Amino acid sequence: MEQKGMLIVLSGFSGAGKGTVVKELTKDDNYRLSVSATTRKPRPGETHGKDYFFISKEEFEDMIRKNELLEHAQYVENYYGTPRNYVQSQLDQGYDVILEIEMIGALNVKTKFPEAVLLFVTPPNAKLLRDRLTGRGTEDDTTVAKRLARASEEVEFMDKYDYIVVNDDLQTCVNEVKSIIVASRNKATNNINFINNIKYELNEIAKGVN
Amino acid sequence: MEQKGMLIVLSGFSGAGKGTVVKELTKDDNYRLSVSATTRKPRPGETHGKDYFFISKEEFEDMIRKNELLEHAQYVENYYGTPRNYVQSQLDQGYDVILEIEMIGALNVKTKFPEAVLLFVTPPNAKLLRDRLTGRGTEDDTTVAKRLARASEEVEFMDKYDYIVVNDDLQTCVNEVKSIIVASRNKATNNINFINNIKYELNEIAKGVN
Repeated sequence: MEQKGMLIVLSGFSGAGKGTVVKELTKDDNYRLSVSATTRKPRPGETHGKDYFFISKEEFEDMIRKNELLEHAQYVENYYGTPRNYVQSQLDQGYDVILEIEMIGALNVKTKFPEAVLLFVTPPNAKLLRDRLTGRGTEDDTTVAKRLARASEEVEFMDKYDYIVVNDDLQTCVNEVKSIIVASRNKATNNINFINNIKYELNEIAKGVN
Repeated sequence: MEQKGMLIVLSGFSGAGKGTVVKELTKDDNYRLSVSATTRKPRPGETHGKDYFFISKEEFEDMIRKNELLEHAQYVENYYGTPRNYVQSQLDQGYDVILEIEMIGALNVKTKFPEAVLLFVTPPNAKLLRDRLTGRGTEDDTTVAKRLARASEEVEFMDKYDYIVVNDDLQTCVNEVKSIIVASRNKATNNINFINNIKYELNEIAKGVN
């Protein structure tokens, strides 16, 4: 099998528990979590280089110009993006790299890295999704409306993802994600060198026999 | 997630250990092994309905005419084929069905069941493949030549399979096959109803909010 790592892109509905899934995954030493760059200010408790790389607008636009970002997008006047260098170096070393990013970014990554694996995390059914979006009535109307608008947008692109992962029982969900990563490594399209090597060897044997 | 079972098609090089892999898989109650029909005579120890359905040439041709076979092929004057009824009924009940069949049959199944998952089992490297094909010099030339011709044919279609599975350590190999089955169940294309249901529900909530 080929040695290069897999690029795993994780998105999902608000409240689906993406963060917890990612946390569980990164307990395994084979996975590396990509850290995004952003121009927004750090919130209390957030660490530079761990939660985000907090950089200035000028630095961010410089990275765009130098093609140093895998993807980037703008939300509420702030830039968010994935630095390419870290991702590429980890993949080259054979680590699987996890990007936890929004839909637009995810679909952009897929156009640049067609072999990237796109996963969408969702609650197990629409009723639970509704409960999480509406906060069972405890959230104010603006928050509910915002979450709803976002989810309605996301659901239209859900079928552009490669895989749908239900987060009902956390451990089951994490195991499914791990299975998807194993399966992706076994895809024939990710093992062209292996196949060509076997072809070559069979040819050599045939020469020896005839 | 949808409840229907997955159709798993397993092929592989001679000596790659397909049979052992299948045996391990069917220890798990969720998997059902499809039994092929054939017109060849049973060998000592083979049981009708377990190893094969041993039927006459007339019966087989009748099944072809009635479209009761998922795929069929002819080798050395004998017919081999996969009865459709058993496979379909197990899938409908939510069981994963494993077909251990030859390349031609496998590719035929894929055209009829595009959602079928095609796995090709191979030794870990070309040197081991050669050893198994040549029997380390203990086999007669005709046997070696026959295996080699077959492998050379198969290798040309290896990239038509969805997944390549290396059988080096048996348990690793079996776990990879299981991961591939889990991943297949999570494919977005296999969860269109689930996605549509969520879309519908989000629409309903939006109506209630506005």
